[in-house]
Amino acid sequence: MSTDPFSHPWLSGLFQAPEIEPLWSVKNQIKHIIDFEIAWTEGLRAIGNISDVEAQNAQIALRQWSPNYKRLKLATARDGVVIPELVNQVIKDLSNPQAIHTGATSQDVIDSTLALTLREVSKKIIENLNTIKTILLELGKTQGQKKIMGRTRMQDALLISVSHKIQTWVNPLIELSQEAENHKLPIQMGGAVGDNQVLKENAQKMITFISNKLDLPTPQGSWQTNRNKLVSFAGWITRISGVLGKIGQDFCLMAQNNDELVLQAGGRSSAMPHKQNPILGELIVTLARYNAGQVGLINQCMVHEQERSGSAWMLEWMVLPQMTMVTGCSVHSVAT
Amino acid sequence: MSTDPFSHPWLSGLFQAPEIEPLWSVKNQIKHIIDFEIAWTEGLRAIGNISDVEAQNAQIALRQWSPNYKRLKLATARDGVVIPELVNQVIKDLSNPQAIHTGATSQDVIDSTLALTLREVSKKIIENLNTIKTILLELGKTQGQKKIMGRTRMQDALLISVSHKIQTWVNPLIELSQEAENHKLPIQMGGAVGDNQVLKENAQKMITFISNKLDLPTPQGSWQTNRNKLVSFAGWITRISGVLGKIGQDFCLMAQNNDELVLQAGGRSSAMPHKQNPILGELIVTLARYNAGQVGLINQCMVHEQERSGSAWMLEWMVLPQMTMVTGCSVHSVAT
Amino acid sequence: MSTDPFSHPWLSGLFQAPEIEPLWSVKNQIKHIIDFEIAWTEGLRAIGNISDVEAQNAQIALRQWSPNYKRLKLATARDGVVIPELVNQVIKDLSNPQAIHTGATSQDVIDSTLALTLREVSKKIIENLNTIKTILLELGKTQGQKKIMGRTRMQDALLISVSHKIQTWVNPLIELSQEAENHKLPIQMGGAVGDNQVLKENAQKMITFISNKLDLPTPQGSWQTNRNKLVSFAGWITRISGVLGKIGQDFCLMAQNNDELVLQAGGRSSAMPHKQNPILGELIVTLARYNAGQVGLINQCMVHEQERSGSAWMLEWMVLPQMTMVTGCSVHSVAT
Amino acid sequence: MSTDPFSHPWLSGLFQAPEIEPLWSVKNQIKHIIDFEIAWTEGLRAIGNISDVEAQNAQIALRQWSPNYKRLKLATARDGVVIPELVNQVIKDLSNPQAIHTGATSQDVIDSTLALTLREVSKKIIENLNTIKTILLELGKTQGQKKIMGRTRMQDALLISVSHKIQTWVNPLIELSQEAENHKLPIQMGGAVGDNQVLKENAQKMITFISNKLDLPTPQGSWQTNRNKLVSFAGWITRISGVLGKIGQDFCLMAQNNDELVLQAGGRSSAMPHKQNPILGELIVTLARYNAGQVGLINQCMVHEQERSGSAWMLEWMVLPQMTMVTGCSVHSVAT
Repeated sequence: MSTDPFSHPWLSGLFQAPEIEPLWSVKNQIKHIIDFEIAWTEGLRAIGNISDVEAQNAQIALRQWSPNYKRLKLATARDGVVIPELVNQVIKDLSNPQAIHTGATSQDVIDSTLALTLREVSKKIIENLNTIKTILLELGKTQGQKKIMGRTRMQDALLISVSHKIQTWVNPLIELSQEAENHKLPIQMGGAVGDNQVLKENAQKMITFISNKLDLPTPQGSWQTNRNKLVSFAGWITRISGVLGKIGQDFCLMAQNNDELVLQAGGRSSAMPHKQNPILGELIVTLARYNAGQVGLINQCMVHEQERSGSAWMLEWMVLPQMTMVTGCSVHSVAT
Repeated sequence: MSTDPFSHPWLSGLFQAPEIEPLWSVKNQIKHIIDFEIAWTEGLRAIGNISDVEAQNAQIALRQWSPNYKRLKLATARDGVVIPELVNQVIKDLSNPQAIHTGATSQDVIDSTLALTLREVSKKIIENLNTIKTILLELGKTQGQKKIMGRTRMQDALLISVSHKIQTWVNPLIELSQEAENHKLPIQMGGAVGDNQVLKENAQKMITFISNKLDLPTPQGSWQTNRNKLVSFAGWITRISGVLGKIGQDFCLMAQNNDELVLQAGGRSSAMPHKQNPILGELIVTLARYNAGQVGLINQCMVHEQERSGSAWMLEWMVLPQMTMVTGCSVHSVAT
Repeated sequence: MSTDPFSHPWLSGLFQAPEIEPLWSVKNQIKHIIDFEIAWTEGLRAIGNISDVEAQNAQIALRQWSPNYKRLKLATARDGVVIPELVNQVIKDLSNPQAIHTGATSQDVIDSTLALTLREVSKKIIENLNTIKTILLELGKTQGQKKIMGRTRMQDALLISVSHKIQTWVNPLIELSQEAENHKLPIQMGGAVGDNQVLKENAQKMITFISNKLDLPTPQGSWQTNRNKLVSFAGWITRISGVLGKIGQDFCLMAQNNDELVLQAGGRSSAMPHKQNPILGELIVTLARYNAGQVGLINQCMVHEQERSGSAWMLEWMVLPQMTMVTGCSVHSVAT
Repeated sequence: MSTDPFSHPWLSGLFQAPEIEPLWSVKNQIKHIIDFEIAWTEGLRAIGNISDVEAQNAQIALRQWSPNYKRLKLATARDGVVIPELVNQVIKDLSNPQAIHTGATSQDVIDSTLALTLREVSKKIIENLNTIKTILLELGKTQGQKKIMGRTRMQDALLISVSHKIQTWVNPLIELSQEAENHKLPIQMGGAVGDNQVLKENAQKMITFISNKLDLPTPQGSWQTNRNKLVSFAGWITRISGVLGKIGQDFCLMAQNNDELVLQAGGRSSAMPHKQNPILGELIVTLARYNAGQVGLINQCMVHEQERSGSAWMLEWMVLPQMTMVTGCSVHSVAT
């Protein structure tokens, strides 16, 4: 779509995030949805709600499902979420429709799918962060002894070593890599109003089953209206793009103070095989500021109404995927 | 692209903006770019810098140009903007390459193209606003005498008439429609550093010529670093989505206080042929909050560095088109 | 208060807004409240609801009222707004308490007081803008012929004249001064639920009377839930601080490229009698970014619930006065 | 100051944060500054740079210093920061002025003072969070068995138990309490350009000494331009106010659906001794949205220029203390 900077015919030259983009593809998203529903069906069998045959048939239906996108879109307009229609399409020829999705709600599927996606996002970002650290530390080895002008409040202050400058860039990246552990989203499981009332005494068993199956953390209660971990994740990737934005600002100012361009050019002209100085620097400043704006919005999404806020939830859909693309673009641009 | 809510296979059921989307299509954007370059070439002839034949050949080249998108994308990554490569592609077989773009800079083309696009955006939004006003006022005619509970600070206060309630919705829409006049962006024309130094004494003549040709206002000087009118436009469309967000919030609360659903259902159930209560209400709240977040970012874009800020300018590209889509989606959703 | 940057014992050296601060003083705010209530009382007499004597006694009570702040504060915590307790304090010895505030609601008083305050704010900002324009244009006269390096995307581009640079700074200030006309807030008058139902057929007469008395525009209906003009005002002063932020960014970069400091130092070293380069530049960038963030929040305030949103309204109180201080600080810092 | 909502004569009835306010008092801030400088002087002695007598005299001067606030303010306007003048005032009668502050920079003092303050802020917030959890869990004990209507997307869904609802409120508060451990800011120590070049080989010894003395974590390098932990802290307190905002939204909607007010009134009418329903609910929604806006700005502050950004740093001063007040107000309002 032509207002989408990440896939735009030419703007994507700047804004693409080739490692993150496939994670949000319809194919991958449908895969995660189906994985969740299959795990759910297996869970229903494990707690004895459906038979082996019913479970088997349900899984076949899920695996063989061919989406009718036109109807998915129309139904999303009507229902505010895609899952009811999706489930309807899957179960339409099933002898026991109860073998799929029973006790789950749309938000369980969408949020668990998000947890699966963000785990992948996290992995890709960390990989790129590691590459960036390596690049910078190598640069420190070859050029670290050089002296460059240190500047405070935009004015010449004292000479510093290149290795000191690089260390100030690397330190926050190390902190942010270590933080990845804290940002693993658990499965979502609450049912229609968050209390798993359909599953009754089997709920906890089901939660454990699904978590194991999807290899995601077990939640402390449904997080249908508790967006704390999600918002924390958004804060983390915003700080990653923010730290790179600081580096980008330095790149731009180095470009302006010509004598120092050696730092980049000598150290790693290949840092930007396809970008001229200081386009990369400008770009990662732009991305930092973009995410800083969006993280404010994601925090607005915490104010859910009652047992589910359609409004706050839809706002997440408009903002969070884009934020992962932006951080993905930022780390990718610096790492390659 | 799958993180783009406006074109997403199913989320677009909620977020599509069918009147605005075509305005940002590559086809329409290229058309505006070419229109600007043709006007420029004609201007160069009018001020006597190129001959009739040169101008004619240049226009043919512009009209017949077939974009090599792959190279446009690569070049955008390198140059930070598409125009240099675009011009290169157009002029490559031209006997006098000076007949195209001479004295102009990339930003002149991109920003003038934006002015042309926003004029179209404005027109579509106003049309929808007019429809909304008509719908609401008709609703007032048929149901205006009814009494409903007026509520302040979320508590029952006094009975009010439906027509009063509708009037509080319509009044700001009238104000915002009238404001359209103030939000016509002029052409951009400044050359490499904003002072049209290549065109020298012909600059003013050229400005008048191009403005007339494109039927856009004549600017008070280049606005390459003066984003005031642009940001003001963004503020205007944000307030439009904001006013509809207030209406949406009322729809949601009406849905919660069931007895009043009659207002929508009776008055205009067809307001939402494809959306169930209160999806529409929730959606336009979401869109209002989205744009409110973005308008903060657009204001951050005012802090340009020196004669052109790549960073602030790229941030506009990531935010403003999306804002027009969001307001477009909001007015469209209520109007249809 | 020590977290308030505008009055902080030492941070106010940076952030003070000496022209705007007195407008928000309790003294001035109480004055506007009393002016509104006196106009209201006179209006009640004009429409024949109270006698001359009752009106006279009421006005004496209003003029002689001595606030009990402790109780005002406690009551604000309880009621969410100060006016009910304030009115109670004023009327407590009045023979006819109906001679004061009858038919008005708290929001009528608070918002009309805001309209009176913002008119004063606007005047002070425009005065400072005029001073800034004069300073800059004078600078253009004395140094305009000089050539300095024009820079785009943080890199040397072409030489430009100082007068061109100054013109790019002045142009948006001219636009913003001219825009002042569009930002005059009308009186607020709607009564408990916005429809002036207590005043019935006298409402329009009363509106005209109060508007004339306070010399404020007559509103198109109550704007208790229509925050369009208010948000538009906030957008205007944000763009003012934004334009100055762009100038500030240039100051900072000039400071970094030492050779050009002559521009400021020669042209107007007295521009910063108490501020060293580039503190002023940095400060007005900071203020621009601050307001850009706040204007996002003010737009969030448009989503009112039903006939009055306590939540959205309180958010305005936390944000809008501060924004006027920030723009006031910005224009003051550059003008003096 | 009258635009400061936290100390305003009557608005502070809503916005006060009585536990947090004293932490930002000039008295407490000066105390932290002096504590840092004393530790620094002791450190200078410990590494052998000054004698015992010099250290003793320096400490006496620091302890006995009486601030000249007028000059502090003027100097802040000139220098952009208070410390140079503060140090000048302290050392003016000292035989060896090198016994104070040598090797430190203003930012070391200001940021370490901030670390000391935020440690106190954190403690107060956690205390209040614990109180809130206790209140809510007690409410669950007495009323948990009751059934209330669960609502999704603003419409009646299924009955839920009060204890379930309370658990959805408490869960994120538990998460956020546990997170406190991650948000301990270390001392700041980098000297003029962040590399402690004055202290040379003694730098690490000094860092350890000061950290121990102030009982703050030892940093991984100077964080003068690495605002990651600071921004993370801001994100944490924003999510705290966000979670309470969700509770507040529920309070408001409960107030609207009268039948359920029993939850609050019965369970804890004393939750709001001075606030009428639903003022508390509205207030904590307001505070949540306020901080959500500010956290966007704090993230903008990550884009530092070079070895110190005056602009980004000043923006922190305008935003972060206020955010602590807002979260402090939110937890206080619910806890008392």
